[in-house]
Amino acid sequence: MKANKKAVVLLSGGLDSATVLAMASNEGYSCYALSFEYGQRHQSEVDAAKKVAKTIGVESHVISKIDLSQWGGSALTDDINVPKDGVEDGIPVTYVPARNTIFLSNALAYAEAIGARDIFIGVNAVDYSGYPDCRGEFIEAFERLANLATKAGVQGDAFTIQAPLLHMTKVEIIKHGLQLGVDYSMTQSCYDPVSEAGEPCGTCDACRLRDAAFAELTHQDS
Amino acid sequence: MKANKKAVVLLSGGLDSATVLAMASNEGYSCYALSFEYGQRHQSEVDAAKKVAKTIGVESHVISKIDLSQWGGSALTDDINVPKDGVEDGIPVTYVPARNTIFLSNALAYAEAIGARDIFIGVNAVDYSGYPDCRGEFIEAFERLANLATKAGVQGDAFTIQAPLLHMTKVEIIKHGLQLGVDYSMTQSCYDPVSEAGEPCGTCDACRLRDAAFAELTHQDS
Repeated sequence: MKANKKAVVLLSGGLDSATVLAMASNEGYSCYALSFEYGQRHQSEVDAAKKVAKTIGVESHVISKIDLSQWGGSALTDDINVPKDGVEDGIPVTYVPARNTIFLSNALAYAEAIGARDIFIGVNAVDYSGYPDCRGEFIEAFERLANLATKAGVQGDAFTIQAPLLHMTKVEIIKHGLQLGVDYSMTQSCYDPVSEAGEPCGTCDACRLRDAAFAELTHQDS
Repeated sequence: MKANKKAVVLLSGGLDSATVLAMASNEGYSCYALSFEYGQRHQSEVDAAKKVAKTIGVESHVISKIDLSQWGGSALTDDINVPKDGVEDGIPVTYVPARNTIFLSNALAYAEAIGARDIFIGVNAVDYSGYPDCRGEFIEAFERLANLATKAGVQGDAFTIQAPLLHMTKVEIIKHGLQLGVDYSMTQSCYDPVSEAGEPCGTCDACRLRDAAFAELTHQDS
């Protein structure tokens, strides 16, 4: 780890990013959480992010408003139905154009402004490889860009994009989080909750992947 | 030029981006302009962008709100004095952390959502090389990232980041724009206008570079 112990952690309120925050905190970083209200259909994920940040403990939690629904292009921001029939091959309609690029760009600005050089993101390519911006090559390309784009980067004080879940299965992620004391009841993964409070639908891809992982863990434990 | 004639054009309201919009329009692109209210100290540049978009002609003009002042780090978003003593070497305090990365990320999302594959940006490395995110290597790294980050990119329908001013001097830019009929009186370059209407201070770096270029042109013409 670097001498500089500040980190910006992208926090969606979901299972993966909560685990990443716990990991960064456990590694001794002072964590600056960053969440977005990006025109997603449900505000309950921002509420979940607030609970997670408060419980795990952060130096600061910025909730940035960016309206990705103004140009649309996704079932998560438009009036397109979220698929409920099971995880299919290919890039799903829940893909939001350039979302992780926008999230990481803002995290980079925040990090440079506060003097952090590590940025944590909970992307995960194993269980769910449909999204192009959840792959290792994307993360590597962003890190390269970050060090060309910024004052700190060109002066040799390099940024590192940390994606510790990249090669972990959902079951491994949850096991690791539980060891670190993450309370997953606070997190929200569902793309299409049935209530304002965030009650999960149980049938979207995110619910299916989450439920299957918890079911497998229960089975392993018994 | 590609068969797809839609382009997203980043439009700040300044001299450079107005010229780029005129160039893209002249090349036959249907232009979708994108401007930002990013917490800059003066709203007059957004007003200038609106005038420029209207006069040159665009299919649509999105003004996106993103608050870069929430984490600060620049004389353009913080309460730091804008330098007035002349252009110095190095990265100026008017550098805004990761600004062009954030602008291009949003342009990429917009482009993918509307089916555009060309993104125009008015960066210029010749007269003013202080900003790391105005260099060719930054633009190339972003284009590479864009084609790893997006559904269109990974499916082989590649994005191109067009930075036609990259190797032009300020004088060449203005000459080219005048040939295309750009009315530069509508544009605003000043970092620190003396009135809400955008009256330029005449002494910040942006004013000095602009004024010097117009003075040289007048001298050449006489």
